[in-house]
Amino acid sequence: MNSIEALREALLRFRDERDWQQFHSLRNLIVSLNLEAGELLELLQWKSDAEIAALPADAAGREALADECADVFLYLLLIADTAGIDLLDAAAAKLAKNGEKYPVEKAFGSRAKYDRL
Amino acid sequence: MNSIEALREALLRFRDERDWQQFHSLRNLIVSLNLEAGELLELLQWKSDAEIAALPADAAGREALADECADVFLYLLLIADTAGIDLLDAAAAKLAKNGEKYPVEKAFGSRAKYDRL
Amino acid sequence: MNSIEALREALLRFRDERDWQQFHSLRNLIVSLNLEAGELLELLQWKSDAEIAALPADAAGREALADECADVFLYLLLIADTAGIDLLDAAAAKLAKNGEKYPVEKAFGSRAKYDRL
Amino acid sequence: MNSIEALREALLRFRDERDWQQFHSLRNLIVSLNLEAGELLELLQWKSDAEIAALPADAAGREALADECADVFLYLLLIADTAGIDLLDAAAAKLAKNGEKYPVEKAFGSRAKYDRL
Repeated sequence: MNSIEALREALLRFRDERDWQQFHSLRNLIVSLNLEAGELLELLQWKSDAEIAALPADAAGREALADECADVFLYLLLIADTAGIDLLDAAAAKLAKNGEKYPVEKAFGSRAKYDRL
Repeated sequence: MNSIEALREALLRFRDERDWQQFHSLRNLIVSLNLEAGELLELLQWKSDAEIAALPADAAGREALADECADVFLYLLLIADTAGIDLLDAAAAKLAKNGEKYPVEKAFGSRAKYDRL
Repeated sequence: MNSIEALREALLRFRDERDWQQFHSLRNLIVSLNLEAGELLELLQWKSDAEIAALPADAAGREALADECADVFLYLLLIADTAGIDLLDAAAAKLAKNGEKYPVEKAFGSRAKYDRL
Repeated sequence: MNSIEALREALLRFRDERDWQQFHSLRNLIVSLNLEAGELLELLQWKSDAEIAALPADAAGREALADECADVFLYLLLIADTAGIDLLDAAAAKLAKNGEKYPVEKAFGSRAKYDRL
């Protein structure tokens, strides 16, 4: 897959071949994205920091991470499609906003929230 | 922004200019992605289906949706970077797996889980 | 079970018989509570409002709801125990705070957040 | 507050004085519980294990934990009320089920899931 646009087209084709758009209300998609985010979180459950850091080096751990990241991404693309949002533009715009909230000279090396910088 | 690769580079530059990679353990990033997914869910709280469907047509509602989708996407890119995952490839591979779990002839027009098809 | 105190004692005995307190850091318990909350949310996935409202009248639906509520409750009790919080007192105190944020004369019949009342 | 029953009554009175039951569909309550669980998770964001473990000893940290636990508990009581579930009985029944899935002799000192014991 070599572009987000090609992925988006493959995804919408997948959805439409199955006649699933009828289930893809914004509510259902956002709930589903949260459930997939939870499955990503579940990969960490009961694990120490060292065990988590070692996950990507293990074939099964890495595939599980990749699959759950993929599920979140696919729902994100469906939400964006349903809401008429261009995901790349939205992310670039948000990054610019974040740059104003976290100017380099204040935020350097700090994990404080912007209202505490 | 015209490609996921350009976005990824802008994001890593943003992170490195602030020396934030030290906070970006897989655990912290996955927890943060879940919190952002929750902010997306919060946009639906107490709203009816009709009110939710109307969100994208309203300028403030659409910007809120775009911002929260963007936050989820940015954390997803950071997780992928940290775990050495190519997000487009992972999504294409997962879509192929989903195609096997949900063959068109069984899944058409159905919202049942694959183990109940 | 006739009191929250009796439940708490049964739960701590369950934990200690299995030597599980070693895994019950505040972080692990809070992550687990979020995962159980997600399982409750999953019971709603793809369902219409009418189907959700009908869940408690169906034996299997009701048991699934009861089981997931129970899991959230059990982790809440473990978190409270670990953090030295009395759950009943904390809830009563929070209800009093909420009463100040949402005075009856302003909040009656409104689902607005307190900062918009 | 000296019993879960007294808390439940205070909570339902709080709700009814504000005429809020109309908003308390099972869906809305379960979404709200997930959002409150997320606020509990947010207390851990960017913190190390040592910082998290120190939260309860700090007055502000402890109050934040107590408040978020309380919010989860209050929504849990509202869900139970709406679904006709007795929370103490449900938790006791689930604990018994867990005892069968995790027998002491197999689960002692192990954090493995029951299907891997």
